[in-house]
Amino acid sequence: MSNQFAVIGGDLRIIELVKILAKENNIVYTYGLEKAEQLKNLDNVIICEKLTQVVKEAEVVIGPIPFSSNGKEINTPFSDVSISIRELMHTLNAKILIAGTISPEVYDMANDEYIEIIDIMKREELAVLNTVSTAEGTIEIAISNTNKILHGSKVLILGFGRIGKVLARKMAGLSARVTCAARKDEDLAWIKAYGHDATNINTLGENLSDYDIIINTVPHLILTKERMEYVSEECLLIDLASNPGGIDKKAAKDRNLKLIWALALPGKVAPVTTAEFIKDTIYNILKEIYKK
Amino acid sequence: MSNQFAVIGGDLRIIELVKILAKENNIVYTYGLEKAEQLKNLDNVIICEKLTQVVKEAEVVIGPIPFSSNGKEINTPFSDVSISIRELMHTLNAKILIAGTISPEVYDMANDEYIEIIDIMKREELAVLNTVSTAEGTIEIAISNTNKILHGSKVLILGFGRIGKVLARKMAGLSARVTCAARKDEDLAWIKAYGHDATNINTLGENLSDYDIIINTVPHLILTKERMEYVSEECLLIDLASNPGGIDKKAAKDRNLKLIWALALPGKVAPVTTAEFIKDTIYNILKEIYKK
Amino acid sequence: MSNQFAVIGGDLRIIELVKILAKENNIVYTYGLEKAEQLKNLDNVIICEKLTQVVKEAEVVIGPIPFSSNGKEINTPFSDVSISIRELMHTLNAKILIAGTISPEVYDMANDEYIEIIDIMKREELAVLNTVSTAEGTIEIAISNTNKILHGSKVLILGFGRIGKVLARKMAGLSARVTCAARKDEDLAWIKAYGHDATNINTLGENLSDYDIIINTVPHLILTKERMEYVSEECLLIDLASNPGGIDKKAAKDRNLKLIWALALPGKVAPVTTAEFIKDTIYNILKEIYKK
Amino acid sequence: MSNQFAVIGGDLRIIELVKILAKENNIVYTYGLEKAEQLKNLDNVIICEKLTQVVKEAEVVIGPIPFSSNGKEINTPFSDVSISIRELMHTLNAKILIAGTISPEVYDMANDEYIEIIDIMKREELAVLNTVSTAEGTIEIAISNTNKILHGSKVLILGFGRIGKVLARKMAGLSARVTCAARKDEDLAWIKAYGHDATNINTLGENLSDYDIIINTVPHLILTKERMEYVSEECLLIDLASNPGGIDKKAAKDRNLKLIWALALPGKVAPVTTAEFIKDTIYNILKEIYKK
Repeated sequence: MSNQFAVIGGDLRIIELVKILAKENNIVYTYGLEKAEQLKNLDNVIICEKLTQVVKEAEVVIGPIPFSSNGKEINTPFSDVSISIRELMHTLNAKILIAGTISPEVYDMANDEYIEIIDIMKREELAVLNTVSTAEGTIEIAISNTNKILHGSKVLILGFGRIGKVLARKMAGLSARVTCAARKDEDLAWIKAYGHDATNINTLGENLSDYDIIINTVPHLILTKERMEYVSEECLLIDLASNPGGIDKKAAKDRNLKLIWALALPGKVAPVTTAEFIKDTIYNILKEIYKK
Repeated sequence: MSNQFAVIGGDLRIIELVKILAKENNIVYTYGLEKAEQLKNLDNVIICEKLTQVVKEAEVVIGPIPFSSNGKEINTPFSDVSISIRELMHTLNAKILIAGTISPEVYDMANDEYIEIIDIMKREELAVLNTVSTAEGTIEIAISNTNKILHGSKVLILGFGRIGKVLARKMAGLSARVTCAARKDEDLAWIKAYGHDATNINTLGENLSDYDIIINTVPHLILTKERMEYVSEECLLIDLASNPGGIDKKAAKDRNLKLIWALALPGKVAPVTTAEFIKDTIYNILKEIYKK
Repeated sequence: MSNQFAVIGGDLRIIELVKILAKENNIVYTYGLEKAEQLKNLDNVIICEKLTQVVKEAEVVIGPIPFSSNGKEINTPFSDVSISIRELMHTLNAKILIAGTISPEVYDMANDEYIEIIDIMKREELAVLNTVSTAEGTIEIAISNTNKILHGSKVLILGFGRIGKVLARKMAGLSARVTCAARKDEDLAWIKAYGHDATNINTLGENLSDYDIIINTVPHLILTKERMEYVSEECLLIDLASNPGGIDKKAAKDRNLKLIWALALPGKVAPVTTAEFIKDTIYNILKEIYKK
Repeated sequence: MSNQFAVIGGDLRIIELVKILAKENNIVYTYGLEKAEQLKNLDNVIICEKLTQVVKEAEVVIGPIPFSSNGKEINTPFSDVSISIRELMHTLNAKILIAGTISPEVYDMANDEYIEIIDIMKREELAVLNTVSTAEGTIEIAISNTNKILHGSKVLILGFGRIGKVLARKMAGLSARVTCAARKDEDLAWIKAYGHDATNINTLGENLSDYDIIINTVPHLILTKERMEYVSEECLLIDLASNPGGIDKKAAKDRNLKLIWALALPGKVAPVTTAEFIKDTIYNILKEIYKK
């Protein structure tokens, strides 16, 4: 498969993505990335000086992940130019836009301009693949923030969704003693079928004192102030869930417990792999679009 | 938790279930199991001589798994009595019936009699737990039907549903080289995230010649006559899917390939564990019912 | 590497070995295998009718494993001819003989005839590779002789030598809860470093009641009559050590415990793989000889 | 077991050791650790002000690991006092001294004073247990020094001794594709039996270009200037062997390859666990001494 892509704005992952796309013989037009030294003098990469220019040749446009931080301009950390969402939408007329974490307002604007808009962060396969980097980053954090070995230590993972499943497997692969907490009978059955110990989130309390490391993956409060009382004073807490997270930060501080709130690990731990996974997902998206 | 159960008919798994329920201090009334010697003189087990008697004391009635083979009588392999579904339904008036693989007609009859009917084989947690026995049984078959070691051999698993997931993990745990085949991008991502090689079912063909063992878990035809041509002549085929299965039986025979069609492994490989999982599931069901 | 081999006598593994050697473009002269139908009409295999003939062309002679059962004739289960050790030695003059489990008397005879004699069963690499088949065979036995799943069951392995190490790993790979028993501090450290639970053989006693499966790998008595008293009545016992083994057979019988004494698993479970490992080892031996 | 110990000098691991010994109800006299704030006001710990005092009550004396850096004074990083080896030896008369990495000269001095001297770093069980921390530290380094995930990456481990064995297992547990390089047929067999890919050190050359990460565990030069030519320019090199190590540092620099030389990981990665392992080993030593 060889395509022409326009890439507008974005962070380090997007730069890696441009490099991979170019290496795989796609033609990549870029704009809003002029400070990325690595993209200069690269085969198949054409650095454009105007928005209209970058968009002209490509049917598929790749935007930042996340798309915008302020709801007005798109994210362009490697550029001095400012690109308003409205201007971008107007220029893109009738093309396909792939970007990440896009707000409903943007969808509305896109609709007016006949743009097909795809939020890559909603693609299940990308979310699944990203769990691997998240799990490795969590392991790095766990090793470097304890005075003990993971091997044989008691690790409690709150939640058995995507991240919980992959993290539990890797922790077990390092000979940690893994317990996973969930609520649904079905999830508890899966925990056992994968060989971990299972515990019900509803019954968390005194049993929390058993664990050397507690890792939350659930996006709402699980380790409450009341439950925090039971946690061992030497326990390391890691919260992988985005705001507000699943661990009561104030309660952890009051008890003087070590807490690491680790967000967006894939881009930090493994930007190149993350870019590869984004590329695979873009290819999957294109296959679906052109099959229609 | 201590309850009164009526158990009517059923096979070896049901006998083991009665033993476990009785051991955990439930009172168990049985009927249609009079030839099960192991249940005689057991504490907490009351062998009844009439259908009306067994039903009287218990609110929850446990029936055979599968419920009926002919659509008229329920399955009673450990009994000389014949119990018609209609008679049972009539006697059960307004109770809860838990059994397995129940046909729509039975649901209709139950409805007329105000019976709450629950098909335990539709419970996700039981299906998940049963995959463990299925996987172990498959491994036993693979070891005993080849002249080579599993260790280092190339194993292809068709399908990445419940059984595929657990079987792949256990095969990898024995150092087999595991490839899983699926169709959806999401499933292919999961295969990679669990550390296996992934291949798309749609592209199966020549690459089939690589494998020493091919195991199907998909309930419709995957390994067709056309694809069978590519399978190595020393390859072992195992089909875990119920009728018609996913491997063309005639094509395998024409090529003189070794094929094992292995069904209902949990009850054969690990009847006691299977009974324990059924018991856990019954407890889960009761918790849900009495919470309402 | 291409060589000329003489193969004299031997069982199914030797037949598989001849097939592999021939397939890898060695010339193989055979004698004492005339009833092996599979060797007839095979490229590169020459079936000889006299001992003198088979020996003439080859510098390296491969004999049976084990070499002899009665100390007089070599083992020839696939032949009607009887080949005395003395006659063979006399004919082999100044060649290299590779066979298995050779008695000291044979070494003396070989010495008189200037024969370099190598007992392949004393090669460490073959012993290590054979542990894989032994472990898989043990797992097959464990699955088929219990009514429960291995997954989550408590398995005690007596001894942490070659077989113990590989078996423990594979059992853990199937999510069994593995404890290994050894005596030396160093071995106990290795058990922990590999992620298993460790227990000291000297302190085995009451703690034996915890286990669902006990597997012995030590070639002298470990599970004595006194210790047998503590074993759970539902425990499965497997003895992998050759005569007299490490489990008191009579004590197990008195307690009515299920005991499987499983010997020589590699040849039974995976004859083709075993033949491949023998071939690899023969190649290693030849490399060493011709380097001198 | 409850004992009286004298602890003289030492680093963070020794401080942790004192805490553990005290917690397990041993009486611990310390000297040369007066700057370790954590030891003040601790039950069972007696901080002495003179060398003669600390030695008086205890039969077993624990010294620094390593014992001395300059061959004259013992290592006392947590003290302002300077303790000469000669003075210590003289004071210890007829006691047992346990310390680490002790030079032959010290043994000679000890002999003159009837001191039984034990180098704990020569204890096999401690070396084995320490491999776990080394492996975890190596994994932390590998995750944090690459832009890709370990999962699926190709890792080459040079050497299959203690560290190689444990590191290979843990890397495989994280779904890396592990190849181990060794020279002896026996070691190559073990690599295969543990499920890794095996390669012969003697044939390393072009095949080096396959690997994403190369980790050396061998204490002499393996990755020479000549071989370095084949290493991929994106490969991460980690040398775990002490001076001179097994990777040509200059050659790596000339090729502009990323190289981490990681020494003494157990004390850095997991000082508390390391102290526990030292304590276990001291208990083992005492058991042996008092059995005599």
